[in-house]
Amino acid sequence: MRSDLERFFSPKSVALIGASQDLITISGQPLSHLVNHGYGGKLYPVNPRYQDVLGHKCYPSIAELPETPELAIILINAARVADILEQCGKKGVPYVIIFSSGFSETGADGVALQQRLTDIARQYNIGVIGPNCQGMMNVADKVWAGFGSVFFTKEFPAGGVSMVSQSGGFGFSVLALSSLDGGLAFRQMVTTGNEIGVSTLDFIDYFIRDPHTDVIVGYIEGVKDAHRLHGIGMKAMDAGKPILMWKVGNTDEGQKAAASHTANLGGAMALYKAAFKQTGIIQIDDIPDMVDYGRMFRCGKLPKGNRIAMITVSGGAGILMTDECISGGMRLAELAPATVEKLRAFVPSYGSLGNPVDVTASIFNDLALIRQALQAIVDDPGVDCVALLNASLQGEIATKIAAEIIAIARKTDKPIACAWSARDVMAKDAYAALDEARIPHYKSPVRCGRAFAAISGYAEAKRRIAAQRNEQPAVIEKNHIKQILTNRTADVTEFEAKKVLAEYGIPVTQEALATTREQALALAKKIGYPVAIKVQSPDISHKTEAKAVKLGLSSDAELAAAYDDVLANAKAYNARAQLDGVLVQEMLRGGTEAILGITNDPLFGSAVMFGLGGIFAEIMKDVSFRLAPVTPSMAHEMITEIKGYPLLAGARGRAHADVDALADAIVKLSALAVDLKDHVAELDINPLFVMDRGKGVKAADALIKPKAKS
Amino acid sequence: MRSDLERFFSPKSVALIGASQDLITISGQPLSHLVNHGYGGKLYPVNPRYQDVLGHKCYPSIAELPETPELAIILINAARVADILEQCGKKGVPYVIIFSSGFSETGADGVALQQRLTDIARQYNIGVIGPNCQGMMNVADKVWAGFGSVFFTKEFPAGGVSMVSQSGGFGFSVLALSSLDGGLAFRQMVTTGNEIGVSTLDFIDYFIRDPHTDVIVGYIEGVKDAHRLHGIGMKAMDAGKPILMWKVGNTDEGQKAAASHTANLGGAMALYKAAFKQTGIIQIDDIPDMVDYGRMFRCGKLPKGNRIAMITVSGGAGILMTDECISGGMRLAELAPATVEKLRAFVPSYGSLGNPVDVTASIFNDLALIRQALQAIVDDPGVDCVALLNASLQGEIATKIAAEIIAIARKTDKPIACAWSARDVMAKDAYAALDEARIPHYKSPVRCGRAFAAISGYAEAKRRIAAQRNEQPAVIEKNHIKQILTNRTADVTEFEAKKVLAEYGIPVTQEALATTREQALALAKKIGYPVAIKVQSPDISHKTEAKAVKLGLSSDAELAAAYDDVLANAKAYNARAQLDGVLVQEMLRGGTEAILGITNDPLFGSAVMFGLGGIFAEIMKDVSFRLAPVTPSMAHEMITEIKGYPLLAGARGRAHADVDALADAIVKLSALAVDLKDHVAELDINPLFVMDRGKGVKAADALIKPKAKS
Repeated sequence: MRSDLERFFSPKSVALIGASQDLITISGQPLSHLVNHGYGGKLYPVNPRYQDVLGHKCYPSIAELPETPELAIILINAARVADILEQCGKKGVPYVIIFSSGFSETGADGVALQQRLTDIARQYNIGVIGPNCQGMMNVADKVWAGFGSVFFTKEFPAGGVSMVSQSGGFGFSVLALSSLDGGLAFRQMVTTGNEIGVSTLDFIDYFIRDPHTDVIVGYIEGVKDAHRLHGIGMKAMDAGKPILMWKVGNTDEGQKAAASHTANLGGAMALYKAAFKQTGIIQIDDIPDMVDYGRMFRCGKLPKGNRIAMITVSGGAGILMTDECISGGMRLAELAPATVEKLRAFVPSYGSLGNPVDVTASIFNDLALIRQALQAIVDDPGVDCVALLNASLQGEIATKIAAEIIAIARKTDKPIACAWSARDVMAKDAYAALDEARIPHYKSPVRCGRAFAAISGYAEAKRRIAAQRNEQPAVIEKNHIKQILTNRTADVTEFEAKKVLAEYGIPVTQEALATTREQALALAKKIGYPVAIKVQSPDISHKTEAKAVKLGLSSDAELAAAYDDVLANAKAYNARAQLDGVLVQEMLRGGTEAILGITNDPLFGSAVMFGLGGIFAEIMKDVSFRLAPVTPSMAHEMITEIKGYPLLAGARGRAHADVDALADAIVKLSALAVDLKDHVAELDINPLFVMDRGKGVKAADALIKPKAKS
Repeated sequence: MRSDLERFFSPKSVALIGASQDLITISGQPLSHLVNHGYGGKLYPVNPRYQDVLGHKCYPSIAELPETPELAIILINAARVADILEQCGKKGVPYVIIFSSGFSETGADGVALQQRLTDIARQYNIGVIGPNCQGMMNVADKVWAGFGSVFFTKEFPAGGVSMVSQSGGFGFSVLALSSLDGGLAFRQMVTTGNEIGVSTLDFIDYFIRDPHTDVIVGYIEGVKDAHRLHGIGMKAMDAGKPILMWKVGNTDEGQKAAASHTANLGGAMALYKAAFKQTGIIQIDDIPDMVDYGRMFRCGKLPKGNRIAMITVSGGAGILMTDECISGGMRLAELAPATVEKLRAFVPSYGSLGNPVDVTASIFNDLALIRQALQAIVDDPGVDCVALLNASLQGEIATKIAAEIIAIARKTDKPIACAWSARDVMAKDAYAALDEARIPHYKSPVRCGRAFAAISGYAEAKRRIAAQRNEQPAVIEKNHIKQILTNRTADVTEFEAKKVLAEYGIPVTQEALATTREQALALAKKIGYPVAIKVQSPDISHKTEAKAVKLGLSSDAELAAAYDDVLANAKAYNARAQLDGVLVQEMLRGGTEAILGITNDPLFGSAVMFGLGGIFAEIMKDVSFRLAPVTPSMAHEMITEIKGYPLLAGARGRAHADVDALADAIVKLSALAVDLKDHVAELDINPLFVMDRGKGVKAADALIKPKAKS
């Protein structure tokens, strides 16, 4: 795969294959946009019907071009694209954008047509963008190689934001809207369509390397090479380039329907979210998020912790921003007594000295208030970042206040931003000064609060990832287990599955397999009553449904009767089921039921899931995911981030559960997931009993679905 | 209380008490703003220090004014406000705005000062607005009676939106920002501050009556007369005036800390949300919500159902909007086969005939596409409303497409709106034409989707409320129960509490009170083993914690031993506890545990709560609330809206629970709450066993906290 994408974004020459003289049509637009926006390289329209287009000599074929263009744009009917792409290959064109639609998005014929393109691209090592896309816009270098309404815009401010979008029309709308007054300034943007060649993640990878990109934006419906997401996220974090990711298609009913049991909980979105969380990728949901977060990062400072202080001239806005920051995971800084004393000296008695500090509308009568308050608060060691809520202050007052803020911001490494609601025309000078000084400002406290929460979350992720790098994830290799699982197709049932778990250090119930009633009685005596019994069969995955399970048997007589019962029930449920025997198992008392699982996702690879009791996980969807490998601190995050966590932490007079043992089991399960990634498709431990603190955990049931040989 | 608020908003004369000649200060601004914005009535500055202000004769006192002003604005120091207010009273001034701060927001002294104002206002029947507010702006009639930056704006477009805000500075910022290009057009706006006189709800009540108000907006931190919220919401619904309510202060940690046990779940926000939901009040969280929903309502049409269809020129936007509509409670319309056939005739093969219908970027080559697609979809009886996703179409194409949309919209009563991302300058004519035709348009599909979800939710609430009006809420009167509860202060414990429940028709477990071991044995024989026993004491609310409960006793011997145990434990737990006896109770088998409760909120009055099993309700906060009275269909809503509902509906192979009996118990509990509103502060049924369908419900434990006599 080609990776010299700077050539793609800044080609010295561009061929337009199928260029039309009707400059309003899709095949006419690109040449006209390139010319109108000042493209400086060579342009080669290719179309046997014309002598020239827009004053540029038109060539009858690619072969006849006087040189090899660095970029070709294909503007012709789907049916003819493959031929043209092959001609590009023969000519040695490194990058080709295919605008044409009519491929995999249209059904079987289109899929076949698209496969041909993929083959040709591979054969000639062509970096293909598309098909079914709307091209690229290199704002910084004036290469507008695309079509659509946005290309009729005169110009956009150039800056350090680079974006890749799977959507064409809407993608460029996002660029246009987000670069409106005071918004983002873009370096380059590309749409990728069906992505048979250069993928979204290839572009993000390039943006990380690109020295002129500061902030990366992705708009995705789904990425086919999702297993790379984690690595690319980490790379961006190392490079200090935040990725703002807009992932759409979260309610796709079809996606859900296809998935099975545990995968149902793990539906792709959960894994995307896990990958984002693990690598500090910031999820966005709309254009304002993108603009506001992008602006916040422009300040070039990261908060050292999540404690925010606010200074407001109107109490209402402080409440609003508090709501937003708290729900975004921040905390209100507790001001030091010394800070409060300083404030008392000048804040009016009907103001508020607590956080948010309300200096009140008296600001109209005494401009120094804001400077004094801001300095006192910036100097407080318990404050990590500061918001100024200036309501609609405007005109001369606004300009003076902006100057005070800038002077203080210059001398601190704590991020400072403003919620400032004056209209642009009313506080023009103030806003321009803030922009110049890279102090973010927002029209609404809600937006300002969200942006602070975003940068705070990013800084926190950065600290967390740095700490996790010092942890050793458990590495366990068990080659004999791999041998056992190789070529297995049937489900690995409880008894055997738990032996596998035990090999990786996950505690399991005491148990053994009986094939006669007498064996069962002997085993029960050894284990001690009460016991549970469960029929083991690779053909019966849902033992309870088959009534092949009896719990709490407390005597020989009960056990003997139950033994016959469960076998009869299993046979009645599935007369042809292969019966391996009856598992005799200790009954656990007390503890809290949890679920652990592994999903070996075709896109993402191995992920580990944690949730509480069947109902919590399955009905409330209260589960957490991480892509493997999972370190101990990540395992603790998984445990504490579910809503039901208080159940484990001693809520309602319960004992505190053995959370350390639970975290250890998660880490071991992650090691298993990594070691057996080629052998296990899915693994469920349901339930895992989490006992009181110091008493460990025990897997009470488990099931492994082997990975079919590919 | 005065209610002739049209006089307040359009006074014939205004006195400005404490008016300053320094027009930039708080006390100088109001006169200058009134003058500058063309106020047409008489202006009377009052200040003994001046002969005139801004060319208006200045009076030394209120008494000396030549007439009684219809509105007075007090601009002086807090300490002197009471005297001035009294002078206003003596002069007969009907409405007074008090800007001054320094009252209840500052502590005990301020509270006392404020109480004096309240007393004076009552004595003279003055409608007081404030104190601690920033005044009023009647945009339509040019009465700008306030201060702050926003008052320096030249003008705002006048329209039909009326707003009341408890926040001053930020409140006016909201007006300013939401009326920006293409935003809302306001009729009037008022800020209420500490609300000692005319309250937020008084103003909303007035806006409902005001014939020129179409849409009502409230910005509240909390309303002291919350019991009126339900009635006012219903009145607005009847009048066809949507209320957009921005309630802030949702994360107030203090609010939580103060509350007890069940009230913890019912924290005020839950009751606000219940009131909003029950009356169709639309909750908003930021300025864009307000603008976007307000614009959507301007179309003057309500969807008949929640099925939306979309036509897009770029697939990506369709996914995005689907996400937003689905999460907002809408459904994607299933297009009729006949509609799909019509579409097939002209949509390109690489487009999509399903919903969202993707006519693709081919729109550039064939403008008729949108008209044909829109007509086909509007004609489909399975579609309730239609969104057009036009990406960034601009210029002449945009103007033509807008005309097509307008022509079709004119002939249908289905709401049509556009997500249209072209910048304002690029689609000026198209946007102006849509505005003129009252067709809402949004820059982003996310915003368009949210606005559709809002109007759809409102229309659904309207249908639901209409249906509920035909229902009879249960009315049960039990005067002897009131007599029993009168003057009770101690908790009413299980045995007695369940007798109360039974009187109101809520089934309870079979049980009786024993005061000797022999009685207990005799009762158990009658009830049948297994039984539970529980010590009854008004001094032991948490019986389990006191180990004063034993469950599942299955023989005389077990019962006898347990009887002695629980009594000993109860004495050990609280030696001075009054012991009423030991309750002998049937053990329930099977079923699902639910919680029902009543909160008698000091602000809202009686509310009913429902949730599942202790942990679901208390840890997951998965509960629903309604203000009483609750009708049967409302009870069903309460049951189905919790996340854990699938547990009752037969998830995971469970039997379907008796949801009808559960709903009946909720309705009966609501009747109890209404009948005993003066006697019960709190009531908990925990657990209520919900048995399998047809087998009813039974309260297994209950506790009543009587309402202290006021």
